[in-house]
Amino acid sequence: MDPSKAKVPPMKDLTIDNITENTIRINSQSPDLRLTYVLERLVTHLHDFARETRLSTKEWMAALHFLTAVGQICSDVRQEFILLSDILGLSLLVDSIDHPKPAHSTEGSVLGPFHSHEAEDMAHGEAMSHDSQGEPCLILCTIKDSYGKPVSDVKIDIWETDSSGHYDVQYADRDGPDGRCVMKSDQDGNFWFKAIKPVSYPIPHDGPVGKLLDKLRRHPFRPAHMHFMFEKAGYDHLITALYTRGDPYETSDAVFGVKESLLVDFHPADEMIAKEHDVEIGSAVLEHDFVLVSEKEASDLRDKQSRKALADLGRKLKLVHGLPVPDVD
Amino acid sequence: MDPSKAKVPPMKDLTIDNITENTIRINSQSPDLRLTYVLERLVTHLHDFARETRLSTKEWMAALHFLTAVGQICSDVRQEFILLSDILGLSLLVDSIDHPKPAHSTEGSVLGPFHSHEAEDMAHGEAMSHDSQGEPCLILCTIKDSYGKPVSDVKIDIWETDSSGHYDVQYADRDGPDGRCVMKSDQDGNFWFKAIKPVSYPIPHDGPVGKLLDKLRRHPFRPAHMHFMFEKAGYDHLITALYTRGDPYETSDAVFGVKESLLVDFHPADEMIAKEHDVEIGSAVLEHDFVLVSEKEASDLRDKQSRKALADLGRKLKLVHGLPVPDVD
Repeated sequence: MDPSKAKVPPMKDLTIDNITENTIRINSQSPDLRLTYVLERLVTHLHDFARETRLSTKEWMAALHFLTAVGQICSDVRQEFILLSDILGLSLLVDSIDHPKPAHSTEGSVLGPFHSHEAEDMAHGEAMSHDSQGEPCLILCTIKDSYGKPVSDVKIDIWETDSSGHYDVQYADRDGPDGRCVMKSDQDGNFWFKAIKPVSYPIPHDGPVGKLLDKLRRHPFRPAHMHFMFEKAGYDHLITALYTRGDPYETSDAVFGVKESLLVDFHPADEMIAKEHDVEIGSAVLEHDFVLVSEKEASDLRDKQSRKALADLGRKLKLVHGLPVPDVD
Repeated sequence: MDPSKAKVPPMKDLTIDNITENTIRINSQSPDLRLTYVLERLVTHLHDFARETRLSTKEWMAALHFLTAVGQICSDVRQEFILLSDILGLSLLVDSIDHPKPAHSTEGSVLGPFHSHEAEDMAHGEAMSHDSQGEPCLILCTIKDSYGKPVSDVKIDIWETDSSGHYDVQYADRDGPDGRCVMKSDQDGNFWFKAIKPVSYPIPHDGPVGKLLDKLRRHPFRPAHMHFMFEKAGYDHLITALYTRGDPYETSDAVFGVKESLLVDFHPADEMIAKEHDVEIGSAVLEHDFVLVSEKEASDLRDKQSRKALADLGRKLKLVHGLPVPDVD
């Protein structure tokens, strides 16, 4: 932009005590009210963090080097900043804020860095994983809305690791997607497929995020789970996962994803299921009912929570494209 | 580390309201009390930022992509995270916190991303810049302590742009350092050298930080200045700069570095100066007296301010290697 056009507030002699206010003023020249508000809160918290910790120049430089390393290890198949957000609890928090769930609907969980758009469409009953070392299982699901009505034609993204705890994208020499698929719910809101029983695994910990976990004396493990993502016009986007009950990491997930309502039990296939789905009697079966929230239900709840959050800051709310900004009128 | 050894607090069903507390608990297993405290404040502010803005999944992802881009553009000669910290006011703030200055001592300013360890030692009176397009100037300085006593043998790092507003490291085809040097103050605390009059220039704005400035309707310019860094055992490390008074960007520095006490005026060389320093009569001269703070003076002031910051959080202070942690006894 042309600097002579900017209405910059005069600033000089910035100190510990006045730099925050002045940074916010210079950042408040955009007509984008949402950007202005987000930057105001960002600068406030960033500065308060430095003031409250009395952050040293050495620590500041170490942090910048850490963030640089996080950025530089990112590639098409590795997103270390998502991992960082995950282990700091931010990912789960943002999902909870953006996709609030009324009681009795399926809760959300973390997306993680391993979703891929490469997954292929799969017909009901087919096998998602081709890992012969994995323990085969059958997954039988329904999707309903919050009134108990089946929801057909939902696009479902499903992904899991192989039996060694690695996603397909973690193999440099892979020759295509595996352990992931995209399905559509049928007219009765059902979908079913074959997979392998999930295993617990460490998130990638050979990079800067792993080093941080180590310094914090935290283990990098996630309990066994299978990811699901649901998408249909008129319904709130649902990112979730099902967790195998009793996993040793059930109460210490490195990325905070586990919820009681998402814990599931496998049961042995009886004769009827075995026959109907062409699996062995006694093999592992998981049955689960998902409940989707409508866009309206989600946005009503989101707006209500936004209003409360801004009231807590002593501000009146104005919504811009569904996101809160302070109303200054 | 061995995960079975970790004493992890049991965590499940984390929500908007309890995730912060639980993330802090899982991050508090290290014997490094400073790390624990810094992470506690980081997680608190990161989560409060998300809660207060009602950060959306889309915005969160945009932020992670932005940070990734900032990391990926970094190289041996470009540090975009320092730039980001600079334009958010964090760099100036951290310097103010870590290097507090008693009245009458030379104030600090931002380091910026262009300091380099390549600078060569230079004798008093020599020329630091070899840019024939620049307006030559003579810089005559003294260094004293806060009692007015000259400080000899101070290592002084000096750097400035060429007349087009670029540092040497910004040229891919440069054949060595230019516009920078390292000097030592003489036995009377003096140092003097030839340079070119500083010019205002934009910080590198062809990357993610430049895009952010543009979105914020901020110009990327810094007023004309020359960087100085002072180092001597027993004295607090001083990073500062001198700014040419009257620069059009004097009150809108993109990185918040300008202080009234650091504004300087050039005056024309009189016959005596011209003769003594082999410059033309009437050519630009800058005379400046720097005042260094002792390590003890700086750490006393730092400790006092740390105590106040923790008291403001309702906590008692314990110092670990000079940095504050809450005293939990």
